[in-house]
Amino acid sequence: MKQKVAVLGAGSWGTALAKVLVENGHEVTIWGNHPEQLAKINQEHINQPYLPNILLPEELVAEADLAKCVQNVDAVLFVVPTKAIRSVAKQLVEVMTSQPVIIHASKGLEQGSHKRLSEVLAEEIPANKRQDIVVLSGPSHAEEVAVKDITTITAASKNEDYARYVQELFMNDYFRVYTNDDVIGVETGAALKNIIALGSGAIHGLGFGDNAKAAIMTRGLAEISRLGVAMGADPLTFIGLSGVGDLIVTCTSEHSRNWRAGDLLGKGHKLEEVLENMGMVVEGVSTTKAAYELSRQLEIEMPITEAIYATLYEGKNVQDVAKNMMLREGKSEKEFSLGGNFLCHNK
Amino acid sequence: MKQKVAVLGAGSWGTALAKVLVENGHEVTIWGNHPEQLAKINQEHINQPYLPNILLPEELVAEADLAKCVQNVDAVLFVVPTKAIRSVAKQLVEVMTSQPVIIHASKGLEQGSHKRLSEVLAEEIPANKRQDIVVLSGPSHAEEVAVKDITTITAASKNEDYARYVQELFMNDYFRVYTNDDVIGVETGAALKNIIALGSGAIHGLGFGDNAKAAIMTRGLAEISRLGVAMGADPLTFIGLSGVGDLIVTCTSEHSRNWRAGDLLGKGHKLEEVLENMGMVVEGVSTTKAAYELSRQLEIEMPITEAIYATLYEGKNVQDVAKNMMLREGKSEKEFSLGGNFLCHNK
Repeated sequence: MKQKVAVLGAGSWGTALAKVLVENGHEVTIWGNHPEQLAKINQEHINQPYLPNILLPEELVAEADLAKCVQNVDAVLFVVPTKAIRSVAKQLVEVMTSQPVIIHASKGLEQGSHKRLSEVLAEEIPANKRQDIVVLSGPSHAEEVAVKDITTITAASKNEDYARYVQELFMNDYFRVYTNDDVIGVETGAALKNIIALGSGAIHGLGFGDNAKAAIMTRGLAEISRLGVAMGADPLTFIGLSGVGDLIVTCTSEHSRNWRAGDLLGKGHKLEEVLENMGMVVEGVSTTKAAYELSRQLEIEMPITEAIYATLYEGKNVQDVAKNMMLREGKSEKEFSLGGNFLCHNK
Repeated sequence: MKQKVAVLGAGSWGTALAKVLVENGHEVTIWGNHPEQLAKINQEHINQPYLPNILLPEELVAEADLAKCVQNVDAVLFVVPTKAIRSVAKQLVEVMTSQPVIIHASKGLEQGSHKRLSEVLAEEIPANKRQDIVVLSGPSHAEEVAVKDITTITAASKNEDYARYVQELFMNDYFRVYTNDDVIGVETGAALKNIIALGSGAIHGLGFGDNAKAAIMTRGLAEISRLGVAMGADPLTFIGLSGVGDLIVTCTSEHSRNWRAGDLLGKGHKLEEVLENMGMVVEGVSTTKAAYELSRQLEIEMPITEAIYATLYEGKNVQDVAKNMMLREGKSEKEFSLGGNFLCHNK
């Protein structure tokens, strides 16, 4: 059934998801902060800075006024940067005229509070003003979704009905949506893999090869799983699409901005320089801080996160940090990578 | 302590491992089938067809006579193609003059019997003529090990002492060895990932993008884990170096011949053409047959393996098969990818 959907956030991922929804026959309005950008979407059907080579469907409407964008919508999709989630949710509550399903496809943890984004949304949008909150995440570069390359993704909610609602909203021949009931696992996997992408990029920038990158990704999967499980996730989620799937795509594809930022760090550029150079939000940088603080608090060993933190926030030399991390002693594989039988401990 | 080691197999991986052992101060003799190749190793310190750009240590001796190669050795390292393992083991038994530790670094399953390679070795080399059998496996392109890029790898044996012996034999600053007690898991992971590499290459050859490749790798990890667990493996091994680590490196690196073979298949080349073009053994092709037969026998669902089998052995069109596989129906992520709570079922 045709649904009315508001997409909040006109970056590359928001635009690609809005395009999927329009192609599935829904009525879609996209909201952003830059009036000229939105005007160009309406007039020329191009999102210039983010997906310059994609002609968007004419039916996609861009709207700078949040109240107009969300009027009587069935669903609201948040695709804003992590740091903007709370403030946009506050603004939304003021102007909502319906009780929409809330979906988010952002990847990060709130700074300071270390909260997952669905927790932030639940705090700001009271339960009686909305339906359930559903998380959309998986290995999905916007650039490829926009050209209809086959993509698989997870829609996670504790309430299966709402996960299925989002599945039906987005599912088509090239965009394959699978439901999952582990919201914590999907959100922590999505957020934390950006740290490993920074590490994998740094390893590349430092001149290491594919063997070393595979080692970092394997150890990285183990350490983000450990933290996720400590936060309440189902360990199985980390070997699914939103876990290892997204980790692989983020750590091995040229489209990944976190990987590219890591690569520049590895080549010796300063953090400020790197962020300026990227021109887009590099979520992994702030996620590293949140995860580092959480690992201390929950007493979880996260050597890669610690190494990235030391480079980003303590001014340590990236070469020394990487070498030290790669040569860390460990005798048995289970000891260094899995920290015991963690996959089954909370079953 | 200096050990005397025979390396059986003078391909790229055997040569790279022999180089590591020589650099660690051991006395190493490498054996192969091509006298001219071996002569060039002894005279010019080059393994022309396999590692043409690497100057090998002068101390590395190549030897065409198996009896001379294995005289009084402390350890024998098998790095021959899967199909040659049994016959070389038979020859070895005839000429051995000591009771060496047997190590193997080959990746496959025996055709017909579907046996793991350590099982084949144990059958041919009686327990009273050798020490334990140890498996060496992990994300490790020979080309990178040969130039001392940092590499991590697993040494697996049921007997921890022998796993540690192999760890000490190979461990150095750039070659990091971790022990593991799950021989079945390490061997099945090593063998089966080549099937997924063929699939990942085919997806690339067909023109799909990184999102689709990540999906194939994620689903692939699930299906090889299912088969491995049914064969007696510890599920945790599949998220370690010899599982997901080796899967990543084989599915994403240009050095992987299985990936390259898949890429050519995806581009529409015939199997015979592809194998001719490669000039090296493509283990994944025969492993696909063994795994397909095993999956039927053990009633394990392996959609990617089935798809590759249909392409390789039933002459099905690769495009139709791939599309069909990618669009396979499935509603919940756990349903399609994990087949239930398999990770903990044998704990």
